[in-house]
Amino acid sequence: MGKLRFRISISLDGYVAGPEQSVDNPLGIGGTRLHEWVFPLAAFRAQHGMEGGIVNDSTDVVNDSMANVGATIMGRNMFGGHPGPWKASDPWNGWWGENPPYHRPVFVITHHPREPLRLEGGNTFNFVTDGIESALEQARRVAGDKDVEFVGGATVANEYLEAGLIDAMDLSVAPILLGGGARMFDGVGDALTHFALERTIAEPKVTHYRFVRR
Amino acid sequence: MGKLRFRISISLDGYVAGPEQSVDNPLGIGGTRLHEWVFPLAAFRAQHGMEGGIVNDSTDVVNDSMANVGATIMGRNMFGGHPGPWKASDPWNGWWGENPPYHRPVFVITHHPREPLRLEGGNTFNFVTDGIESALEQARRVAGDKDVEFVGGATVANEYLEAGLIDAMDLSVAPILLGGGARMFDGVGDALTHFALERTIAEPKVTHYRFVRR
Repeated sequence: MGKLRFRISISLDGYVAGPEQSVDNPLGIGGTRLHEWVFPLAAFRAQHGMEGGIVNDSTDVVNDSMANVGATIMGRNMFGGHPGPWKASDPWNGWWGENPPYHRPVFVITHHPREPLRLEGGNTFNFVTDGIESALEQARRVAGDKDVEFVGGATVANEYLEAGLIDAMDLSVAPILLGGGARMFDGVGDALTHFALERTIAEPKVTHYRFVRR
Repeated sequence: MGKLRFRISISLDGYVAGPEQSVDNPLGIGGTRLHEWVFPLAAFRAQHGMEGGIVNDSTDVVNDSMANVGATIMGRNMFGGHPGPWKASDPWNGWWGENPPYHRPVFVITHHPREPLRLEGGNTFNFVTDGIESALEQARRVAGDKDVEFVGGATVANEYLEAGLIDAMDLSVAPILLGGGARMFDGVGDALTHFALERTIAEPKVTHYRFVRR
């Protein structure tokens, strides 16, 4: 059985999105700065169907994050759109257009049932309404021997951490202070002491930490 | 006039002390781990009157922090001891014994008046009851051309940040998650966007960030 791997970009003051998130500003005020380290990378651009870009010490982090992943899990807020039940007349289909960058089954944790959404490039979004453990079980079933990645956001991340289900955690810390927003690790308490630091990679725009369960 | 420099060690989840701080456990549960990077350093040991120790990339950070400082400011909680008015019969004289590591005038921000406390090695603790700006003014007066260092804790740090009075900030981020305790940057909001990152130094046990006011 593969691991459950969690990766996320976080500010120095512990936020994974800025204040006042909305459909028009999904990462909140200043939140785009969390990801400035990744946008110029050739490895990131290729994943999103773009040519060119640079190679630096973060390249391995991006390549590692894509290797040996059989399924993706995310929270409803990360899938995005309006809150509450899905609108049959004008359904929200994610932030990523017709061909999202996952290219594998994605499991969206939500309170509101919905039929699977099939987009281009092998992207199938399945909506899971019976909790984080069910999502992990379903994701593991389709992932086979490969790992499952969980990509946020903060609310579901804290639930997975509290449940002790995350095997490896890649935190990419942007040296910025957002001053508010979606707070990671809030109230998770002692669950966090079960991780050991395996690797640190520092760049001017980001420091990558890899934690593994002891 | 010198700068106001702030240095502090902080966990990846944004705490500068662990939960349940007390006289017996001043750094709270797990809080000592914030400072594990500094204890083995020869530069730190010499400052505390001990011989031996190691030299690594953190040495410059410690030496820089001691250079050109004419006065120190700290909050009452960092000076420590019991809460409330000072006890004349059994006064709290700090955590550091007869010869604290500052060797310069220290200004303690408190709600409770007290006569200056003179200890060995040039350590005089002055108790300031009229706020952070008064403490800075008094510290600057004795520091002359030198800088003033502010060393925490979180409550007063957030006040200085909100007031826009800090010129340079050295954050030493320990790759640990405390899960609770004294939270840095809480509610400081946009005041933090006025800083630019000048330098990053990464070590296995710590990543040092130097921020300066834009």
